[in-house]
Amino acid sequence: MPSKAPSVRPEEAASPQRPSRRARVSAHRPSPGKAAPRRPSRAPSVPVTDPTAAIGVFDSGVGGLTVLHAIAELLPHEHLIYLGDTARYPYGTKSADTVRRYALENTAFLADKGIKMLVVACNSAAAVALDALAERFAMPVVGVIEPGALQAVRQTRNGKVGVIGTDATIASGAYTRALKRLRPDLEVYTRACPLFVPLAEEGWVDNDVAHSTAALYLTSLRRSRIDTLVLGCTHYPLLKRVIGEVMGTAVTLVDSARTTAEAVRDTLERHGLARRRGGGSVSFFVTDVPDRFVKVGGRFMGQKVDSAVRIER
Amino acid sequence: MPSKAPSVRPEEAASPQRPSRRARVSAHRPSPGKAAPRRPSRAPSVPVTDPTAAIGVFDSGVGGLTVLHAIAELLPHEHLIYLGDTARYPYGTKSADTVRRYALENTAFLADKGIKMLVVACNSAAAVALDALAERFAMPVVGVIEPGALQAVRQTRNGKVGVIGTDATIASGAYTRALKRLRPDLEVYTRACPLFVPLAEEGWVDNDVAHSTAALYLTSLRRSRIDTLVLGCTHYPLLKRVIGEVMGTAVTLVDSARTTAEAVRDTLERHGLARRRGGGSVSFFVTDVPDRFVKVGGRFMGQKVDSAVRIER
Repeated sequence: MPSKAPSVRPEEAASPQRPSRRARVSAHRPSPGKAAPRRPSRAPSVPVTDPTAAIGVFDSGVGGLTVLHAIAELLPHEHLIYLGDTARYPYGTKSADTVRRYALENTAFLADKGIKMLVVACNSAAAVALDALAERFAMPVVGVIEPGALQAVRQTRNGKVGVIGTDATIASGAYTRALKRLRPDLEVYTRACPLFVPLAEEGWVDNDVAHSTAALYLTSLRRSRIDTLVLGCTHYPLLKRVIGEVMGTAVTLVDSARTTAEAVRDTLERHGLARRRGGGSVSFFVTDVPDRFVKVGGRFMGQKVDSAVRIER
Repeated sequence: MPSKAPSVRPEEAASPQRPSRRARVSAHRPSPGKAAPRRPSRAPSVPVTDPTAAIGVFDSGVGGLTVLHAIAELLPHEHLIYLGDTARYPYGTKSADTVRRYALENTAFLADKGIKMLVVACNSAAAVALDALAERFAMPVVGVIEPGALQAVRQTRNGKVGVIGTDATIASGAYTRALKRLRPDLEVYTRACPLFVPLAEEGWVDNDVAHSTAALYLTSLRRSRIDTLVLGCTHYPLLKRVIGEVMGTAVTLVDSARTTAEAVRDTLERHGLARRRGGGSVSFFVTDVPDRFVKVGGRFMGQKVDSAVRIER
């Protein structure tokens, strides 16, 4: 007796009002003549050309650590700087406007650390902020949405793809646009699953509550006969087992962490920015006190996060 | 890092702005000087002595509307100004340090509107910030914790009281201190229930997921033989039915909204600040775009919240 009927939004054929190519996996360059973003209001940044410089990664909190982990595995020579905006977490329940502002502030912080490229490891931020970041910052930017979409298009056999994510991500329509750009005849079914994030944070990934929640959110998606489901939020891979149980073995679950790491590698190569030798490193910054980040972080990073530096703003 | 210079002077609060019933729906951006400061000034504020001035109420989001509703019912002549910090919601998962900073910023915003007294309608903020607010602001302040504790002490027959709340509220120990101050020999049992907030926000207050979650959180509390349970978070009254089912009919659930309204009334009387005639009003301010606040707000306010003004900071 759910008080809210689970509903799936089938997305129709490519909307004519969205002809422009938007967020791409590859580099974002500021377009001359475009209006300056509202905040932060600084002069456009100059791209860093030093391959030994770090890669900046940001997320609203701990979720992006799944992406960080994949990058660290694929690119062991790289220095990584991770920023978790834990004081303002989560982004997925907030408006596009607010998430865009937070993304600009996070990127300004990382740009100030001299990063050579940026990874937006938060689906909600990648869904609404890539254009604003490209206008304001000169560095190459990779988000998690295009890689996830690419992986889904490679995977599907029957051309029916589902996407689950936060309210912000699903409302943005970013996955649908990315998928249809790659393959216009796809049928795309989307569903916001807001409770998955707090479940993953609580560590309830395989109990009764997780099972009933997955059943409520996903039953109508399963009925739509998709063969591929994009886990459009970095928290969701932790719930893979219960999601898989509801969807059945015929549906492939797509987690964009690995594909995003590959997009990062390709982007570095294309810009001559890859670091080819020496040990890599990871440093962590958070906006709330680090305790909870360090505690919960291990669940996402697959290894111990033993310290993080707090920044205040 | 973006930074905004602190510029609000709380002493300007002496000239009250009348709250308007005609709050606009559209998000607007006030001039920078009118936005809440990142850091409130150190100068102590001057108390407002005009009984026709408004009462300020803040919460991290919509939850405090249950308290606002009780105040509006008990004190129909009063003007009320509500601030929901929806851009940084929720507070319950964040550190005491960060919540305290947010509470100071919210209060500076309301002080600038000329309020005669302040109600901290968020348990997480009341649990950690009341001392800091008293140091910085001269106005009378009522939080939701003392009234909830008082109500529980009046209610219990066997001297065993339970308290449920967010991580921040439970970790602070504020309820235990308040309860023991009133009656030192009480046995107090506490439990953080972090998933109750997203459940209430999702509107899942009486389905399978709500029932299993309540069972998981509350079973050991029930075994501790308490006869009174404080709902130490403004979201929890929405889950009263499932909480009651797990706890059984022998346990009284304490919701501090009504008792807080009574504490507000008593405080106004004590300071000669009660408004005795004329119609009251409520105006709403939020820090994210108003859409979601207006949509979800009705569930908490018990009546339609038809508009809210956005402030940016």
